[in-house]
Amino acid sequence: MTTPPEVLDAADPLAAFRDRFVLDDDLVAYLDGNSLGRLPRSTLDRLGSFVRDEWGSRLIRGWEDSWVDLPVSVGDELGAAVLGASPGQTVIADSTSVNLYKLLHVAAALRPGRDEIVVDATNFPTDRYLVEAVAQARGLTVRRLQPDLVENVTVDLVAEVLSERTAVVVLSQVDYRSGTLVDLAGVTRAVHEAGAVVVWDLCHSAGVVPVDLDASEVDLAVGCTYKYLNSGPGAPAFLYVAERHLAQATQPIAGWWSAADLFAMSDTYEVAPTIRRMLSGTPPVSGMVAVQEGVRMIAEAGVDAIRAKSKSLTAYAIELLDAAGLEVVTPRDPALRGSHVTVRHGDARAVTDRMIARGVVPDFREPDLIRLGLSPLSTSFAEVEAGVRVLVELSG
Amino acid sequence: MTTPPEVLDAADPLAAFRDRFVLDDDLVAYLDGNSLGRLPRSTLDRLGSFVRDEWGSRLIRGWEDSWVDLPVSVGDELGAAVLGASPGQTVIADSTSVNLYKLLHVAAALRPGRDEIVVDATNFPTDRYLVEAVAQARGLTVRRLQPDLVENVTVDLVAEVLSERTAVVVLSQVDYRSGTLVDLAGVTRAVHEAGAVVVWDLCHSAGVVPVDLDASEVDLAVGCTYKYLNSGPGAPAFLYVAERHLAQATQPIAGWWSAADLFAMSDTYEVAPTIRRMLSGTPPVSGMVAVQEGVRMIAEAGVDAIRAKSKSLTAYAIELLDAAGLEVVTPRDPALRGSHVTVRHGDARAVTDRMIARGVVPDFREPDLIRLGLSPLSTSFAEVEAGVRVLVELSG
Repeated sequence: MTTPPEVLDAADPLAAFRDRFVLDDDLVAYLDGNSLGRLPRSTLDRLGSFVRDEWGSRLIRGWEDSWVDLPVSVGDELGAAVLGASPGQTVIADSTSVNLYKLLHVAAALRPGRDEIVVDATNFPTDRYLVEAVAQARGLTVRRLQPDLVENVTVDLVAEVLSERTAVVVLSQVDYRSGTLVDLAGVTRAVHEAGAVVVWDLCHSAGVVPVDLDASEVDLAVGCTYKYLNSGPGAPAFLYVAERHLAQATQPIAGWWSAADLFAMSDTYEVAPTIRRMLSGTPPVSGMVAVQEGVRMIAEAGVDAIRAKSKSLTAYAIELLDAAGLEVVTPRDPALRGSHVTVRHGDARAVTDRMIARGVVPDFREPDLIRLGLSPLSTSFAEVEAGVRVLVELSG
Repeated sequence: MTTPPEVLDAADPLAAFRDRFVLDDDLVAYLDGNSLGRLPRSTLDRLGSFVRDEWGSRLIRGWEDSWVDLPVSVGDELGAAVLGASPGQTVIADSTSVNLYKLLHVAAALRPGRDEIVVDATNFPTDRYLVEAVAQARGLTVRRLQPDLVENVTVDLVAEVLSERTAVVVLSQVDYRSGTLVDLAGVTRAVHEAGAVVVWDLCHSAGVVPVDLDASEVDLAVGCTYKYLNSGPGAPAFLYVAERHLAQATQPIAGWWSAADLFAMSDTYEVAPTIRRMLSGTPPVSGMVAVQEGVRMIAEAGVDAIRAKSKSLTAYAIELLDAAGLEVVTPRDPALRGSHVTVRHGDARAVTDRMIARGVVPDFREPDLIRLGLSPLSTSFAEVEAGVRVLVELSG
């Protein structure tokens, strides 16, 4: 007999955060916060006043007022609240794909005598595609890990392919399909022992799992802000370069925002000595404002408290799914998973469509996976129970 | 004796558009619409409903509803209304800098046997910096034009450096300092006669000068949307690839949005056969929505009518500046200028600051230029008169 969800919600120290999001009465359960996070009410207000009062009224003067500093200042806020990163190493900019492209070039250039780049063959497509493209452009060989879906990338699996030829290893901290949490510190250590550098994709972990980039001595990292950071569809991504690599970090898209003096319009290009060197063109101001709001809510709740609730939410979902006899491909040990729970089902796409028609929104992933993304600040236990109930009913 | 501005405003067929922008009573004159365009009231409303109803309520379903098509559908609207481009050649994506980076690689790859890239040595910094970076990455030699500020880039100046070594020529249609309008069709013809391809930067011309990319047989073009297209600070940029080049256009940042099937998550990368191949990561939805609003207002007014008013506004400003004995570096022939008028002044920075303190916002450009950007849909003749009056008073 599982605990009634209202009991769990009543005991949830983060329960009050849910009311700070826009909730739609038409939805029985939104279980896709790991694809697109809900809208914080504060962001709705902030974006309105940004458009009306900052763009509409300050106009070009807004850049000097504050906008020009946002890529770094919001990056620093995100670094402190979410990434375990001290200031000056994180910027908000571009998309995850563009940032990953930049970092792959930076990473490869840090190990010029080496000719292999390692990627998880089951990693999210943009990571694999960009590794192929950059490897081809730089004459590197791609080595592909073939992890098991559930066990996923382990230190041993990575260690097997590391050698004195390895320049760069590119991995995701949380697998986008199974939700498996990879040992970021352990893998980073193994990569460093082989003399290579690591690029972490934090899309499915930022804001919901403690990351500790500085403490783990991570080299480079990227991630998006529209999942657990609740910054809106297509909000700008983030990028981290460890301070010890900054002086050698020469990214390829050397636009004017990467120059030492943005408005000097000088004849010759001189790269910024700071993390601004990773910027390229004019950044999207409304997007950075939304990231700031999302990050501040995470900072207020604290990632440790969020992680604790995430473990409870996912445990509760797994308990309900197990009781119904559905096949869960997410690790049962909470220490080994992020914040989504994935069910394998032979008719996954049709079940997903039927769930959406009933007001329960999960996510379908090829070929046979249904993901339930549980976003601790906006997802209640009652919502998990209601959503899983519909899934169980429709998947029979 | 100059005509009183109220007479000119009364005769202006586009005068009513001004009331469709958010106007700030604190500003005497906003003469920087060529740096950041004013906020259309329709955009204020549309962004509010987008955030509240689309993101807040449709959540992840918004992508299937309409968002996924916006890079191309808004690109097509922009192509038709602003660029003289038939559908399927324009996308909204990233920043001007990132798009220019992509197109420089595409352009160089179109002429593999050639090793020179030509750039205007006085072009906007991001163009010059990126040309240097891409040339270095691809082993090309950079040839720099040294145009006169006022006369600027002419067909003859370009023709002098063209040879069988020229792969790519990169130019701006309107000079960001003097406002000189370059002969886009004539230069494109000369570049083609030499067997090279041309990349046009349309940042200071899109929305205010007829562009006619298809008719001029332009190869590739980029531009921003936050100036005369009024789409907000850091709104996404646009990018054009002529249909005849599309099959060979292989851009370097091969993220998942450039793949033939976005959600197939396939093992191998297959590039989209359409203009979507130029995309990289998840595009900023609110930015594309704002671009759509800006473009629709341009479409409603028509670029030809906008161009006619632009010529009148700039002529009026020059008349007032001449009468006061200020040094105008913008061409006096309206056929040879875009929509900003530039004054050279030994104390330009201090004069700019004093103007802003008096509620008149121009733009300072190193080392001694004051730009007056006249945006035909939102700038009145009365505003030009009031702004120039303050400039004249403070520049004595």
